[in-house]
Amino acid sequence: MDPLISVLLVLAVAKVLGELVERAGYPSLVGEIGGGILLGPAVLGLVSVDAVTGTFADIGLILLLFASGLQLNQRALQRSLKTGIYAAVAGIAIPLLSGIAVGVAWGFDLAASLVTGITLSITSIGVSLRTLVDLRKLKTDIGLVIVNAAVIDDVLGIVLLGSLPALVSGGGKTGDALLGALSAALFLAILLFPGKRLILWVFSVSHRAHTNEMPYSVALIAGLACAVLADRVGLHYAIGAFLSGLILGDSVRNDRTLYDSLSDIAFGLFVTFFFASIGLLFPVDLPGFSVTLLLCLVAVALASKTLGGFAGSVLTLRDHGRALVVGLGLCPRGELALVVVKTALAAGLISATLFSTLALVVIVTVLLSPFLMTYGYSLAAHSGARPGKRGA
Amino acid sequence: MDPLISVLLVLAVAKVLGELVERAGYPSLVGEIGGGILLGPAVLGLVSVDAVTGTFADIGLILLLFASGLQLNQRALQRSLKTGIYAAVAGIAIPLLSGIAVGVAWGFDLAASLVTGITLSITSIGVSLRTLVDLRKLKTDIGLVIVNAAVIDDVLGIVLLGSLPALVSGGGKTGDALLGALSAALFLAILLFPGKRLILWVFSVSHRAHTNEMPYSVALIAGLACAVLADRVGLHYAIGAFLSGLILGDSVRNDRTLYDSLSDIAFGLFVTFFFASIGLLFPVDLPGFSVTLLLCLVAVALASKTLGGFAGSVLTLRDHGRALVVGLGLCPRGELALVVVKTALAAGLISATLFSTLALVVIVTVLLSPFLMTYGYSLAAHSGARPGKRGA
Repeated sequence: MDPLISVLLVLAVAKVLGELVERAGYPSLVGEIGGGILLGPAVLGLVSVDAVTGTFADIGLILLLFASGLQLNQRALQRSLKTGIYAAVAGIAIPLLSGIAVGVAWGFDLAASLVTGITLSITSIGVSLRTLVDLRKLKTDIGLVIVNAAVIDDVLGIVLLGSLPALVSGGGKTGDALLGALSAALFLAILLFPGKRLILWVFSVSHRAHTNEMPYSVALIAGLACAVLADRVGLHYAIGAFLSGLILGDSVRNDRTLYDSLSDIAFGLFVTFFFASIGLLFPVDLPGFSVTLLLCLVAVALASKTLGGFAGSVLTLRDHGRALVVGLGLCPRGELALVVVKTALAAGLISATLFSTLALVVIVTVLLSPFLMTYGYSLAAHSGARPGKRGA
Repeated sequence: MDPLISVLLVLAVAKVLGELVERAGYPSLVGEIGGGILLGPAVLGLVSVDAVTGTFADIGLILLLFASGLQLNQRALQRSLKTGIYAAVAGIAIPLLSGIAVGVAWGFDLAASLVTGITLSITSIGVSLRTLVDLRKLKTDIGLVIVNAAVIDDVLGIVLLGSLPALVSGGGKTGDALLGALSAALFLAILLFPGKRLILWVFSVSHRAHTNEMPYSVALIAGLACAVLADRVGLHYAIGAFLSGLILGDSVRNDRTLYDSLSDIAFGLFVTFFFASIGLLFPVDLPGFSVTLLLCLVAVALASKTLGGFAGSVLTLRDHGRALVVGLGLCPRGELALVVVKTALAAGLISATLFSTLALVVIVTVLLSPFLMTYGYSLAAHSGARPGKRGA
């Protein structure tokens, strides 16, 4: 099929399904994945992941992480480091270990068990925030704890994601792994110090350019370049894209038109291809698919994340009900978990069946998320917490 | 090479060269073409036109025409129909016939002569307007005549461009050509009446969507869909894209943020790939390239357009000096002329050597444009026209 028609079909179908799902009260990414499943080999067989749709999906992932980085305030991130760190660390550690345990118990090899653990451990900051906004709870005290925890969870998740390529080459020599770790550390050090200055300087110079759209182009080039460089030194695209977004965030947020325009190209075009491509990867049949494993993983995903978020925040919040809401609020997994399973599938670490099972676990946690949080808030209300009181 | 790296290289190099050229006082498209020549087989051989860069270039062309359509006010276009039509028609007809004559005299076949004529006949509304803005002459009376003439010239140029596929199948049966003309007319009738209503309805509904970026996505989907449909019925992508932009223009211009965002994705990303891809198509060597033909075509391009614009406007303007400025102001050829030569090359109507010669003619007219207009204005000042007086 003409690549233009593939692009048009994926965009139109995924956007329409995304909107329908959003109107039903769920995040649109579920519909976008559904669009991919519908158009892909699993159902209609009209579109597949080829050079063009694959590149659009890669740029979508890069812009998703870039735009997430743009949204975060570096200083707020530093201030919230202490507040959210307990909830985030416990909320990562318990699902990670639980996921590995389920994998080992089910007879996966070590790599697949690790991938399962990592997938279960990363909260979706996007879905979490979206749910809080929808419930009008974003700026409450519990809401802010969840945001802080989700942000730090996100950063830890990206570190875990960055460790995947090392997992892939895990069979290699220790010298290679050391060399890889060194070059990755060198890249991060260069990016975060001289690289940061360079990016900010080029971006500020771009405002004096004679070409109108130059700051926009420079932001896109910075995101793509950092992503490609991160990939070249053995990290994941996502880390470079996220860090370049974080570096440019304070400058870009000062220019509302530019910020909106970059969000538009991310969420209005390319990101849709990332989620749709996950659906396009759904195989026609799943040999050995186990509903028991799916249900078991969903239960572990929800229980372990709730427990982790609760355990991490109950000491500071000093309120069982509200700490439970934090745990429930961290339950949705999303884009990053899907990046993990997609990367792991592409690297041959997991089978197509496990890929689809884990992707389904992610989708189920997203679907349940609004119900869980509503339930949590009703519990917290009964436990006597006053809304608006800042206890964190 | 990894498609992502190709995308990054083309964007970064073309944007930097575009900016340098813009700072030297010329339109950035010259630098973007230069970036393509530099990265392509003609010089470094790092990037070629493949599925990914080709699709980006196609979307670039579609968004260029879509964004041009967005900029135009339908009612102003209707009001200026009379004022600009003489200058535009004479400014198209004389270069068209002159170009055909040069082609026939040089021994081209009929198709190549027609392509030469069409290429010489279409003014670049983008370069014309940009030059007027740079000289601070846009809102003068002569400036408005030039704008009107350039707009109508643009529409006529798109009709000529739309006739190219018919030229391609010119060797076929008359019945096929008739069927093609009928289906094209049917498409245009459907697009401009029920299609227009449908597009405007979907766009207005998209503002009530639960997904934030929906109007943006719907505008992109409308542009892509109309372009693909136009191509399917034997017209050119460009016509569908331009008309959908024209249809949505009044609505989109009311939403400044959306308008800026769509201009950003067009000119800040995809359009650059369209111009760079013209450079990427430059062949390594040009067998039979003739400097004489190049100079001859440049001279004919400038003389015929100046004469056409002069002859068409001297009756209404009643001032030789100012009519000459209109003629000189219409001289730059640009994106549409390049679309013509690229389409003709892809269809096998012209050789790679003639393609490169005609593309060079376009680039030379763009480079000369600021000098010609400055010269024209100094002549007009001597002929006694008062600036600011509305004589049109």
